[in-house]
Amino acid sequence: MPVDTRPIILTGDRTTGPLHLGHYAGSLKNRVALQDSHRQFLLLADAQALTDHAHDPAKVRRNVLEVALDYLAVGIDPAKTTICVQSCLPALAELTTLYMNFVTVARLERNPTIKDEIQARGFGRDIPVGFLCYPVAQAADITAFKATVVPVGEDQLPLIEQTNEIARRLNHQIGHDVLPQARALIAPVGRLPGVDGKAKMSKSQGNAIPLSAAPEAIRDAVRRMYTDPNHLRAADPGTVEGNVVFTYLDAFDEDREAVVALKEHYRRGGLGDVAVKRRLDDILQALLAPIRERRAALARDPGHVLRVLRAGTLEARERTQATLDEIRHALGLFTFDR
Amino acid sequence: MPVDTRPIILTGDRTTGPLHLGHYAGSLKNRVALQDSHRQFLLLADAQALTDHAHDPAKVRRNVLEVALDYLAVGIDPAKTTICVQSCLPALAELTTLYMNFVTVARLERNPTIKDEIQARGFGRDIPVGFLCYPVAQAADITAFKATVVPVGEDQLPLIEQTNEIARRLNHQIGHDVLPQARALIAPVGRLPGVDGKAKMSKSQGNAIPLSAAPEAIRDAVRRMYTDPNHLRAADPGTVEGNVVFTYLDAFDEDREAVVALKEHYRRGGLGDVAVKRRLDDILQALLAPIRERRAALARDPGHVLRVLRAGTLEARERTQATLDEIRHALGLFTFDR
Repeated sequence: MPVDTRPIILTGDRTTGPLHLGHYAGSLKNRVALQDSHRQFLLLADAQALTDHAHDPAKVRRNVLEVALDYLAVGIDPAKTTICVQSCLPALAELTTLYMNFVTVARLERNPTIKDEIQARGFGRDIPVGFLCYPVAQAADITAFKATVVPVGEDQLPLIEQTNEIARRLNHQIGHDVLPQARALIAPVGRLPGVDGKAKMSKSQGNAIPLSAAPEAIRDAVRRMYTDPNHLRAADPGTVEGNVVFTYLDAFDEDREAVVALKEHYRRGGLGDVAVKRRLDDILQALLAPIRERRAALARDPGHVLRVLRAGTLEARERTQATLDEIRHALGLFTFDR
Repeated sequence: MPVDTRPIILTGDRTTGPLHLGHYAGSLKNRVALQDSHRQFLLLADAQALTDHAHDPAKVRRNVLEVALDYLAVGIDPAKTTICVQSCLPALAELTTLYMNFVTVARLERNPTIKDEIQARGFGRDIPVGFLCYPVAQAADITAFKATVVPVGEDQLPLIEQTNEIARRLNHQIGHDVLPQARALIAPVGRLPGVDGKAKMSKSQGNAIPLSAAPEAIRDAVRRMYTDPNHLRAADPGTVEGNVVFTYLDAFDEDREAVVALKEHYRRGGLGDVAVKRRLDDILQALLAPIRERRAALARDPGHVLRVLRAGTLEARERTQATLDEIRHALGLFTFDR
């Protein structure tokens, strides 16, 4: 068998809820596109979900299956992409506790992503230790797979920096390069706003369109979608910037020329919200119908999904364990065969 | 086979150097005494040693064997006590990362033991994350073995408190008691001072008598031992308090009446340092000679020591993994058979 020289991708999702259209545009679509040219690993990040959901492990567990269904429904092919459950990979916890000795508390507290998220979650000083340390856990995830490509949003660049810092520190301690440096792959489509115009689409805000949304739910979400509040009559000129319907058309309408023409018409006046929304509804219905159907079919066969997760997790367990063994050996730690 | 109802002890040592007379008086002697009445586990704490020795893993590894030799030499019987290597027990790292979600950063920073040790090591804000988190790792150690008795010095009581807090938090989350509460067993002999009179005997201070010390090294250490600096002539009255020779006689001379008489004579005047030191030297030579000989014999058979560590570690791995599985199952986390 020829050696697989494709770049290794590690990415994944916290299992705190089913995925939605924002995930599709920002990451899922890309993952489907990258699964041939890259050796791709998808992590169902239940352990990371526990860092701020320790009070609700049942929710975290339930959503391992929900997110797995989303992956398979959008076209992630388990024959090409390895899907695995984070908390079932002991090497990740072992690497996390090892790396924790190579990072200072001050360094973690300086991490802008962590700073922002502590504020957003209102943790203050009562931040769980696991949450403060999640950049270390993420470094363990990335390095355990020896990933060199990590798809992220721009706000997550400091996490890649922290990972590479730990890898360099380990390599320096060991005396040669055991761990590769990872580079961020910034998503071509930025974060999709909620249907209400708020910056972030999120299930908890009730402004998201889940991938499993029924036709009426999609239609309803598009109908109440935020547009230009000053565009009262179709004849009036309207604003395209910040108008969610156009943001979504930019993300999902493949006829770019038509979108340009529509925007021009809307700005000029004479194009009503109803007409633009009808176009978007058609596009979203066409996009989501096959996903919804595949998802429903898969949900009727949980045994199949579990077999996929089991096979992926066992493969990932072997790979991450190999990296841990290599690091332990290079550091000269004690080892007994398992 | 009857069920073993003996209380479970977990204790151990950081593997940063061979053990010395202070360890013997403060803990090793007790462990030998307790290994029949208790189900005892001894942890060679190499992972914890890395929290402030990440720059020198070779030293940490080397001393796994040195401390194991010390254990066997003083009479720890591997048929009664399980000796195991901490970093070879993956369940401990997994429990550590899980527990980190149930403890806040503020709570760790309030821990008086951690506060003191941060100061003693001069870490300031540059404390390694692993060091800040070692009370969580220690809670993982203790609970993984379901230990109910933990021998500690008085300064370590806050660590037991933190462990019990985490156990209660987990039990509360789970809805029934999976983890027992542990109680501290305060050592009957307090911390032995260094031969120079400093509060702590420590290899790095050069004021310790290692368990493997040669007869001349013992004699030399006793000869330069700190006594009463004002007791210049044998005829003068002397002070017993803070006089290291008498502190050591208190710890090691089994003829309590003779020690009382000696102290009285020394206080009264007429008893020279040389005579008291000769008595202490005799006692220490008699105590350490068989330990040194057993240790040397064991060191000539490293294969035997490795077999002991391997058997103990595999047994401990099974036991700690069972606790982890029980907790994961009770929390309802995803599991695939290994």
